[in-house]
Amino acid sequence: MKLLKAHRTIRKYKKIDISDEIITDLLESGIRASNTGNMQLYSIIVTRSQEKKTLLAPLHFNQSMVIDAPLVLTICFDFKRFSDWCVSRNTLAHFNDLLWLLNGTIDASVLAQNICVAAESYGLGICYLGTTLYNTAEISEVLSLPVGVIPVTTLTVGYPEVVPELTDRLPLNAVVHFEEYKNYSSTDIAEIYKEKESLPSSMQFVIENKKTTLAQVFTEVRYKASDSDFFSVKLLKMLREQGFEL
Amino acid sequence: MKLLKAHRTIRKYKKIDISDEIITDLLESGIRASNTGNMQLYSIIVTRSQEKKTLLAPLHFNQSMVIDAPLVLTICFDFKRFSDWCVSRNTLAHFNDLLWLLNGTIDASVLAQNICVAAESYGLGICYLGTTLYNTAEISEVLSLPVGVIPVTTLTVGYPEVVPELTDRLPLNAVVHFEEYKNYSSTDIAEIYKEKESLPSSMQFVIENKKTTLAQVFTEVRYKASDSDFFSVKLLKMLREQGFEL
Repeated sequence: MKLLKAHRTIRKYKKIDISDEIITDLLESGIRASNTGNMQLYSIIVTRSQEKKTLLAPLHFNQSMVIDAPLVLTICFDFKRFSDWCVSRNTLAHFNDLLWLLNGTIDASVLAQNICVAAESYGLGICYLGTTLYNTAEISEVLSLPVGVIPVTTLTVGYPEVVPELTDRLPLNAVVHFEEYKNYSSTDIAEIYKEKESLPSSMQFVIENKKTTLAQVFTEVRYKASDSDFFSVKLLKMLREQGFEL
Repeated sequence: MKLLKAHRTIRKYKKIDISDEIITDLLESGIRASNTGNMQLYSIIVTRSQEKKTLLAPLHFNQSMVIDAPLVLTICFDFKRFSDWCVSRNTLAHFNDLLWLLNGTIDASVLAQNICVAAESYGLGICYLGTTLYNTAEISEVLSLPVGVIPVTTLTVGYPEVVPELTDRLPLNAVVHFEEYKNYSSTDIAEIYKEKESLPSSMQFVIENKKTTLAQVFTEVRYKASDSDFFSVKLLKMLREQGFEL
């Protein structure tokens, strides 16, 4: 599908607002996606005000998209609404365990991707903010999320100011396995990553960061184990405070 | 977007195979989706053989789609390939914590949804199998998944034999919040779920299951706390055996 294959992450937006009609259409497209048991265990928080964007920006490490995008959508795993319904109907729901955390994460992500596809069909551009999971408690405070509502991902949406080149992908056969997982030999690994390693942008990263391999840029600069440990512990704390059995 | 809004889950498929060209296009559309740091921490296991379908079916509680669909895709969080690359490039990757489990789940889900949209653009129908997370260890065995590869979700894909009616959704304003989360009063909850509760199919569920409310069908029949506890503990065990700090 042409639209899907033309996807680029857009980080620079024109100073043009998105109409209410289009926003409604994006959200309606989002909620038509498959979801577990059709329970719709999600909520979407729409941020368009400068005030809220200014409060959210530092929680996303001041990535410029949060302030610059006309539309910021925080997509949450929400089992509060459903649980409230259950209480009013003489029963109790149970969602605060690992299985439901993952189910909720899947449903929120599938919904988010439908919104992205719909947005791109309107000529809009999107960016996913993975930083959402780093600061769930703080984002919850800014958006007044109650217990039972956990931010999973954030999308910034706007008309592209700059449309970058398509980013690289590993060869398709490097990520697809037929019938059984085919283990990679060290020759396979070298072959799979050859193109990525030889991109001018990759070589630039290695030099700029004073590393000897591209892999080190990922593990020692961009996604350090110490950061991941720190944010995992923080996330676990937030979930346990919400009563998660984790 | 018309295509997204016309989505139905398809559980009955025609006995027609899907061409290699279309399957390749679906997979290529999948991997163009956004993913964390463009590290592509996922793998897709393609099942077309009757032998593997027969082994997978009981792990998905014998849902007929697994056998009947010409194409079954198990979409996995895969940090093995990337970690192997890191080792060969003099560094170590660290992905087995909660943050990366959720990042990996998001990336796998976003990829899965791109495949679904591409499939529907070809007139194919899809069904997500949430049962994947119930039996990750057993599915890993059937598909020979090594440590570092965790099944997240499964799609069955085929040409629709029957196209059902659109399923219900809560009113859009019931799941969307502007600027801040708006708490629901008990009147709001009653209003939000009114239509769902009054559907003939919902009333049928209540009678068939000898319950007094639709909510009870969800909590006491379809998604019991005891099942969820059982499968969460099982999933946690599998992840801990893989070295996850959980």
